[in-house]
Amino acid sequence: MRILDIRETAVPVRSSMRNAVFDFSEMTTSIVAVVTDRVAEGRPVVGFAFNGTGRYACGAAMRARFIPRLLKEPPEALLDAEGFVDPEKCVAVMSRREKPGGEAERAWAIGTIETAIWDAVAKARGLPLWALLARRYGPGTPSGRVFCYVGGGWYRPGQTVADLQDEMRRHRDAGYVLLKTKVGGLPLDEDRRRIEGVLEIVGDPRNLAVDANGAFDRDRAFAYAEMLAPYGLRWFEEPVAPTDFALYAEVCARYQPAIGTGENLYSLQDVRNMIRFGGLRPDRDVLQVDPPQAFGLSHFARIVEAAEAAGFSRAQIFPHGGNQMSLACVGGLGLGGCEAYPGVFGAFAGYADDARVEEGWMRLPDRPGIGFEAQSELYALMRELAPEVTAARAS
Amino acid sequence: MRILDIRETAVPVRSSMRNAVFDFSEMTTSIVAVVTDRVAEGRPVVGFAFNGTGRYACGAAMRARFIPRLLKEPPEALLDAEGFVDPEKCVAVMSRREKPGGEAERAWAIGTIETAIWDAVAKARGLPLWALLARRYGPGTPSGRVFCYVGGGWYRPGQTVADLQDEMRRHRDAGYVLLKTKVGGLPLDEDRRRIEGVLEIVGDPRNLAVDANGAFDRDRAFAYAEMLAPYGLRWFEEPVAPTDFALYAEVCARYQPAIGTGENLYSLQDVRNMIRFGGLRPDRDVLQVDPPQAFGLSHFARIVEAAEAAGFSRAQIFPHGGNQMSLACVGGLGLGGCEAYPGVFGAFAGYADDARVEEGWMRLPDRPGIGFEAQSELYALMRELAPEVTAARAS
Repeated sequence: MRILDIRETAVPVRSSMRNAVFDFSEMTTSIVAVVTDRVAEGRPVVGFAFNGTGRYACGAAMRARFIPRLLKEPPEALLDAEGFVDPEKCVAVMSRREKPGGEAERAWAIGTIETAIWDAVAKARGLPLWALLARRYGPGTPSGRVFCYVGGGWYRPGQTVADLQDEMRRHRDAGYVLLKTKVGGLPLDEDRRRIEGVLEIVGDPRNLAVDANGAFDRDRAFAYAEMLAPYGLRWFEEPVAPTDFALYAEVCARYQPAIGTGENLYSLQDVRNMIRFGGLRPDRDVLQVDPPQAFGLSHFARIVEAAEAAGFSRAQIFPHGGNQMSLACVGGLGLGGCEAYPGVFGAFAGYADDARVEEGWMRLPDRPGIGFEAQSELYALMRELAPEVTAARAS
Repeated sequence: MRILDIRETAVPVRSSMRNAVFDFSEMTTSIVAVVTDRVAEGRPVVGFAFNGTGRYACGAAMRARFIPRLLKEPPEALLDAEGFVDPEKCVAVMSRREKPGGEAERAWAIGTIETAIWDAVAKARGLPLWALLARRYGPGTPSGRVFCYVGGGWYRPGQTVADLQDEMRRHRDAGYVLLKTKVGGLPLDEDRRRIEGVLEIVGDPRNLAVDANGAFDRDRAFAYAEMLAPYGLRWFEEPVAPTDFALYAEVCARYQPAIGTGENLYSLQDVRNMIRFGGLRPDRDVLQVDPPQAFGLSHFARIVEAAEAAGFSRAQIFPHGGNQMSLACVGGLGLGGCEAYPGVFGAFAGYADDARVEEGWMRLPDRPGIGFEAQSELYALMRELAPEVTAARAS
């Protein structure tokens, strides 16, 4: 198996959403296509990925550094024992001549290329990516389905509590059980009214999580911790700045229910620091690293193993992303669940067009690879990068 | 004062050096020019900066996000009380719509633009940048000169201990007193022979520092700590990975003399974490953050203040970079000293063509701004970005 070409393009995410800290109006993402010499089901095998949401496109670094390093490497040096391209070896090659530290500067550029390589390898092997990840990093999910919750409740201009309740009712009607809503974008009393409004819809407070997107300083974090604790919500996500480990430890010491964090940690070292110095509690807290943004799925698997070694259960890991890349990790590594953002990030979130959530659970796809081919709006963008896929289809 | 245009270009660093971890053969850097509406000494005021060495060019993020945000902002919103552009306000504007965390992805893009703005503001005010920084962040350096040491002793193919001694002798002959050499690129015994060889040249072990560039795992870090401790060297730099705070704490507990670190920390939060969790000793250890790479000089000033609040003396701060941007910080903020890399990074290191080091000290420049105009090779590259400077000169 040989990588013939790697292409990328930047695409606007076009989201009008706002959380407690920032809006997404300028947001872009990078789509990557890895073209290989393999053919599967009569089509050239091309792997696809995108760098998720919340971070900007990173194509310049790919073009200048990571793509040339891979394409210059002797192809046989990138193969595993079975003759397929080995994503871990590709990460090692892409990381050459990079100074230690400053990982975030390259974590999603490398991670997105790595994820597209996984898509290609899974297609070349004729396996859904979750099944390939289960084989390599185990244990997979025996039920053939994964838990999926909604990351919603964004702030919108003029929104009332009744509007928020309507949104949450729609998510429940669509089959979701666990819902998440934003906090920190309004004064505490107004946020409390929002939470009480949503609790009327979800009933059990274990079916509601809240997300502050790292907005709080010390005083406000403590005030929210005190306000939120009696509800016993599923988790309180990113109360404070993502790497303020000392303040995390203080919040964890004052807030009994679960804390969630990790979507803004980009390496195994970051996660180790958070676990060690952030005071996280292995018996309850939730880790949410974004796989393609954190050097890709093989690095993410090492993060999962490190968390497990520190006493966390895989059921406490909910990768960030709300897309089929995270879905494959949840299904392959046997994690707690994945996120969905219905209607928020356009083509750049969500699952196969025919995916259905029933009582909070979604069936794993049986298409080879990640399964982007079954997401028509997103795949239309991806296909533009690799017309050979369309041409072969037409023939 | 108004910013009319901000331009950038990527330039190869063309260095053949190697440390214990990586080589610099593909390295690039971004040069930035900030064109203003001011005229000083008959020339349009243009501020310049570059993003240092060790990290790659970052122009795509500048073009896509940071430059448009600044140029779209109403110009009066960027001014200080005296009508000059305020670099701190510029950082706040450039940071809009950026998700918290992952700071390294934008720290040097934002920091390089911010540094070029400082250059422009200092020229508009007719002050050397170090003097302007002293006025704003104090206390400056009363002697009018700064300490300067050599970061040398890189690994070269075929190099003998005698070759290394020759290099170090040249640095001593050039006026430097404190020298630094690499460790970790060879087995411990060979590195020991290199150190003993250099000690023959420098004499006092307080005039020698060593730099592992984060290369060591736990065992090797401990072995080097044990080997190095009896020498009582000036400092042992970056023994382990830059954000492995737990391992830093272990090394600090075992190694009595000073540790140096920080060139791969990119934010105030990173430095706070290192001080708090890395076991650094405020009475001896050395901090080496790179100002234009860590969100620029105003953010760097906050880092210096935080270190001082934690008990460090400003004399223990030696900013990374080996260029006139770090020199201005050392002179303006009254820091321990700056680095020089004679002959290593081509145009992208070093000081004014007429700068002289005498017994380890260098006079502060009296040219307005950073002083790049007096570095002919570097300024020739910068001038290409802003031909209006040349045109006005000719008239």
